[in-house]
Amino acid sequence: MRKLNVAILGATGAVGQRFIQLLEDHPWFQVAELIGSSRSAGKTYGDAARWVLDGNPPAGITDRVVGALDEPLESPLVFSALPKEAARLRELELAEAGHVVCTNASANRMLDDVPLLLPEVNAEHVDLIAVQRARRGWSGGALVANSNCTVMPVVMSLKPLRKYGIRRLHLVSEQAVSGAGYPGVSSMDMIDNIIPYVPGDEDKMESESLKMLGSFAGDSIVSLASTVSATCTRVPVLDGHLVNISVDLAEQPSLSAIIDDWQTYQAASPVPDLPSAPDYPLQYLQQIDRPQPRRDRQAGAGMMTSIGRLRECPVLGYKFAALSHNTVRGAAGCSILNAELMAVKGYIDGFQMTVGEAAFA
Amino acid sequence: MRKLNVAILGATGAVGQRFIQLLEDHPWFQVAELIGSSRSAGKTYGDAARWVLDGNPPAGITDRVVGALDEPLESPLVFSALPKEAARLRELELAEAGHVVCTNASANRMLDDVPLLLPEVNAEHVDLIAVQRARRGWSGGALVANSNCTVMPVVMSLKPLRKYGIRRLHLVSEQAVSGAGYPGVSSMDMIDNIIPYVPGDEDKMESESLKMLGSFAGDSIVSLASTVSATCTRVPVLDGHLVNISVDLAEQPSLSAIIDDWQTYQAASPVPDLPSAPDYPLQYLQQIDRPQPRRDRQAGAGMMTSIGRLRECPVLGYKFAALSHNTVRGAAGCSILNAELMAVKGYIDGFQMTVGEAAFA
Amino acid sequence: MRKLNVAILGATGAVGQRFIQLLEDHPWFQVAELIGSSRSAGKTYGDAARWVLDGNPPAGITDRVVGALDEPLESPLVFSALPKEAARLRELELAEAGHVVCTNASANRMLDDVPLLLPEVNAEHVDLIAVQRARRGWSGGALVANSNCTVMPVVMSLKPLRKYGIRRLHLVSEQAVSGAGYPGVSSMDMIDNIIPYVPGDEDKMESESLKMLGSFAGDSIVSLASTVSATCTRVPVLDGHLVNISVDLAEQPSLSAIIDDWQTYQAASPVPDLPSAPDYPLQYLQQIDRPQPRRDRQAGAGMMTSIGRLRECPVLGYKFAALSHNTVRGAAGCSILNAELMAVKGYIDGFQMTVGEAAFA
Amino acid sequence: MRKLNVAILGATGAVGQRFIQLLEDHPWFQVAELIGSSRSAGKTYGDAARWVLDGNPPAGITDRVVGALDEPLESPLVFSALPKEAARLRELELAEAGHVVCTNASANRMLDDVPLLLPEVNAEHVDLIAVQRARRGWSGGALVANSNCTVMPVVMSLKPLRKYGIRRLHLVSEQAVSGAGYPGVSSMDMIDNIIPYVPGDEDKMESESLKMLGSFAGDSIVSLASTVSATCTRVPVLDGHLVNISVDLAEQPSLSAIIDDWQTYQAASPVPDLPSAPDYPLQYLQQIDRPQPRRDRQAGAGMMTSIGRLRECPVLGYKFAALSHNTVRGAAGCSILNAELMAVKGYIDGFQMTVGEAAFA
Repeated sequence: MRKLNVAILGATGAVGQRFIQLLEDHPWFQVAELIGSSRSAGKTYGDAARWVLDGNPPAGITDRVVGALDEPLESPLVFSALPKEAARLRELELAEAGHVVCTNASANRMLDDVPLLLPEVNAEHVDLIAVQRARRGWSGGALVANSNCTVMPVVMSLKPLRKYGIRRLHLVSEQAVSGAGYPGVSSMDMIDNIIPYVPGDEDKMESESLKMLGSFAGDSIVSLASTVSATCTRVPVLDGHLVNISVDLAEQPSLSAIIDDWQTYQAASPVPDLPSAPDYPLQYLQQIDRPQPRRDRQAGAGMMTSIGRLRECPVLGYKFAALSHNTVRGAAGCSILNAELMAVKGYIDGFQMTVGEAAFA
Repeated sequence: MRKLNVAILGATGAVGQRFIQLLEDHPWFQVAELIGSSRSAGKTYGDAARWVLDGNPPAGITDRVVGALDEPLESPLVFSALPKEAARLRELELAEAGHVVCTNASANRMLDDVPLLLPEVNAEHVDLIAVQRARRGWSGGALVANSNCTVMPVVMSLKPLRKYGIRRLHLVSEQAVSGAGYPGVSSMDMIDNIIPYVPGDEDKMESESLKMLGSFAGDSIVSLASTVSATCTRVPVLDGHLVNISVDLAEQPSLSAIIDDWQTYQAASPVPDLPSAPDYPLQYLQQIDRPQPRRDRQAGAGMMTSIGRLRECPVLGYKFAALSHNTVRGAAGCSILNAELMAVKGYIDGFQMTVGEAAFA
Repeated sequence: MRKLNVAILGATGAVGQRFIQLLEDHPWFQVAELIGSSRSAGKTYGDAARWVLDGNPPAGITDRVVGALDEPLESPLVFSALPKEAARLRELELAEAGHVVCTNASANRMLDDVPLLLPEVNAEHVDLIAVQRARRGWSGGALVANSNCTVMPVVMSLKPLRKYGIRRLHLVSEQAVSGAGYPGVSSMDMIDNIIPYVPGDEDKMESESLKMLGSFAGDSIVSLASTVSATCTRVPVLDGHLVNISVDLAEQPSLSAIIDDWQTYQAASPVPDLPSAPDYPLQYLQQIDRPQPRRDRQAGAGMMTSIGRLRECPVLGYKFAALSHNTVRGAAGCSILNAELMAVKGYIDGFQMTVGEAAFA
Repeated sequence: MRKLNVAILGATGAVGQRFIQLLEDHPWFQVAELIGSSRSAGKTYGDAARWVLDGNPPAGITDRVVGALDEPLESPLVFSALPKEAARLRELELAEAGHVVCTNASANRMLDDVPLLLPEVNAEHVDLIAVQRARRGWSGGALVANSNCTVMPVVMSLKPLRKYGIRRLHLVSEQAVSGAGYPGVSSMDMIDNIIPYVPGDEDKMESESLKMLGSFAGDSIVSLASTVSATCTRVPVLDGHLVNISVDLAEQPSLSAIIDDWQTYQAASPVPDLPSAPDYPLQYLQQIDRPQPRRDRQAGAGMMTSIGRLRECPVLGYKFAALSHNTVRGAAGCSILNAELMAVKGYIDGFQMTVGEAAFA
């Protein structure tokens, strides 16, 4: 099989590096273009980028020449790790030019016709692309976004509970520093300290989570009608965002029923068979002091959400803690999973993939 | 003036060391007896204790011989930093033997006739001692407790809001490791990690806060009738507990009214004139990313509570962050302040102190 | 192929857990017996052990019953992660009883007839076992040790330089907290701090490194005759010991010659073909700020030593930094590699393995 | 007494903030001008500066307007916390214009006629100012520098040993992040990690230490003729640089003689009586695991150097660890102490101060 060429926008940054790392041995996609800012363009990747992940870049990456953001791309599939302002117009231009763009940037997430896609939660939202293409007159291009990295553990853990009626949500996050990119948070702010504020994230928590848990009404997404209160804090952890979640449900399931919902949860086919999807997207940890960022962020190669401490909340009914790896499941890994879903659903021209039972049909 | 002799129980532990440190130049009290476990008794303090605070023990402490817990004490005033089980009976025995015991241990905090005292919040609870003495047949002895260290920033920040009617409270703490004593939390649990659970603290948050904010009804404390939900987490911070607080109030004051309540709050005389009391017990920080443990825990020599980020909570109405130094305001410093109040109120036989205007009368 | 049963002594501790983790999919060995202290014996592993590594124990481990240290073992091969005092006699007893014991404990390392084995450095020392068996009258049993975890990066990086004549060594380590086990170093000692002392390690650095770099003279090991000065410090890092090494060589090779020595270094056959051996045991990192513990400890699945910053030392001639993963290469991983060498060399009765070219002969 | 007006260059940065903090209640000097970059000039200090030290800026500072670096100054005394390149010419211009400039910048430290002043070590170097003025034709102006922050603990601890003949020095530092300023080192580089390299510092260690320990020959400084090898590493510590020092002495004093040298060391009058000088600049800690950055950096209000672990070094004869607070003793505090010495020595026109016995004459 010939792999599909992909371009990575913002390839020198921390999330761009995760894309490179996660795509190293990807069965369907291969990195063909590395795109950087004007400061990086024309240099080799090794000269332009300071590799901040563990170890070293995959073989062959260091000598590639970084391309410029304002020049045409050849790859049909584009992953964007651009900063917000750089992303806003460029992502739309590339989609208009026929590229399928899977973005991790926040700029276009809340546009009406852009799905905020998380395959295990709302795979059906991918069909908003037909609306998007029709409305904008795009032929082969498309733009799908994944959510803010702190929203991930929230919507992943709440999806199986949506059936009970989610009325009110109270969220307090403890977020890793990699969420702010590199260099991001100064070590002078993080040694022996926490910061009780993360710029912009509380608003995203309150809006994006409802859009993601919303339903696809044929031509638009109807956000979940819940009340959400979010507080975001930064802690001295490298990777892994933990959220303390209290939730008021319309029904009153038992605690064991909820744990069972989590343990058995799987999205409908073909999602569990996508290459980057874990067998089960959720795990419930019985130990009273879990999940912990360092010990649980790598579950399912960083793609599982770990949940723990489910108990009654005197104020809202139920409370628990949920954790996801913020730069894998919460960023690059989710964009790649979104692209895999697009490929299976036939939204990437000339690159129709089959997985699961279908593959043996 | 001759200073009052005090004994410190559990003098070799982390909180015991804070007592020694804070009493070094105390104007009224002087350390006369250092009491330790059977393992420490008979050794010099320098041999028995591993000093874990910054710097070194005050001059003269190192050569003192540590006394045994089961032997009679001579000091009229006793500060207890005992572990819970060791504290339970011994504190009552010492009070019965005529000592005024100010304890930081949790064992006896919720006894009906033991005031859970925090002078800026509930100085009037000190008069429960009369009930205590009458009921137990004690003459000069008494037992007063201070609350769990995580409860401090909660009740300190809520006291000025009690007039608006506190209906529901949702608390998520981010607690420093010194709250677990020494050696306490392993570094293998805290490097690049947080722990979403602190043994025992959630229950204390939910019960002690209501007792402390309760009213003294002449012969008993009537706890505040609010609903409290607490989640306690541990973060890699040395000192300083931060609590993310959401509160549902019966009235709807403006945000600026609340900030003004905090900025101007002072307890009634004589509390602000006690030696260990800060001029104002609360400060509201305007910076959007404060309070922070490392930067704000030392406010008012560790005795002030710092508050920040007041804003509307879509779920409960109001939310904000509050921070106190957990081993100063939240432990040893509060016990000392309690003892100062006792001295002024005449509850320490033969040691009646006067402060403030009274001093000039 | 039927795998060889192995027992792990001290299975509930941090190094014991590494043994379990590294043996999970081992091609030759399988965990058959988990041995713990009297406090753990009789309980299931899940009840007896607090798993401190990332994630959870391998499937099937949690329900195993922990055996007692003083009872006979069935497994031919024994890995010891015992504390020093518990190890001293028991390891010798087990070897006498016919078990091949590969120990990570320090108790018996410097015995004349116990090889301090590191296959890439001194594979020929394994033949000291013949001497050991003869002298002690053991038949199938044997005892081989691996060195202190901080010695690893020193001897690994110096082995290729031994040909230049190592006259003097000056070592300053910056060691991870996992070197002290769990709970080990208190978080109150490690937040915003370093400790300029590690009990016992400086002596081990100065003696074990010379024994390991020594030559096998047919019936004994002749330690290298160099002068060593070691300073050991503890830093807030989870895993990975870094040592700043200055060395005085008899010859004066160029810096590039030394780098080439490192880059091309391989032990003689069969070592590179052992299952746990990396292809190349050393890597030289060109970046001026490497090796770094977090970014480089996982090189070669934790079995490679990373070296960097080679430059002239005005005092001793050459200086550089070397890093190894202290609980993989520096502890459990090395013991397993030692056992693999024993199996290939025919020192495990009835379990003669072949690797490399020999396997295809 | 009227205090002398001082200007602070680079007032918004981390070292500039230390100047402001340390000068808050200074008996002789008062902050009159706060000078920043073009980006800060014209704004209030509160708007221009992000306060990164603990707590908040001293009262009255926040509302001051920041002045521009290229405009004339009025204050006779100038403290410079400028970046290297900005410092190079501007400091000389200001000295030429008649200001006494005490700089923490590295740009002009190694100029032949600029004293690298540390009053407890080389107070006599201050008289190089006469040479400087004569050579450059300056009247009232002067430029004195203090050394790199990592050099401080080295020269402070070696000064009392200079009499034994310092032949060779081997230095390995473990440096705090505040040495790199704010934001400086990324938290993504410091969580669970150390960096074995600090740009520029090894060269400074090897040159500045010899100049500081050198002798004033009437018209120039003759550097100490020793061989120095320095390795500089960065560790996750906020403040406090620790250096592991090995030294080869011409004479062979006993360990206790050296400890006695340290314990009793005082500079000649008037240094010990300067307002910012501690009574004794050195302390030797008997505990085997000290000095530690967090526990010992505040000794003597951050102006003492703490030494520990003196023992024999098999390679160089003696070894020990020394620690100083890098932004107090190692930066702003030293500049202020230098200015105090200048004032007493009569090098600040119209501001002749007297201290110690002289004050009572």
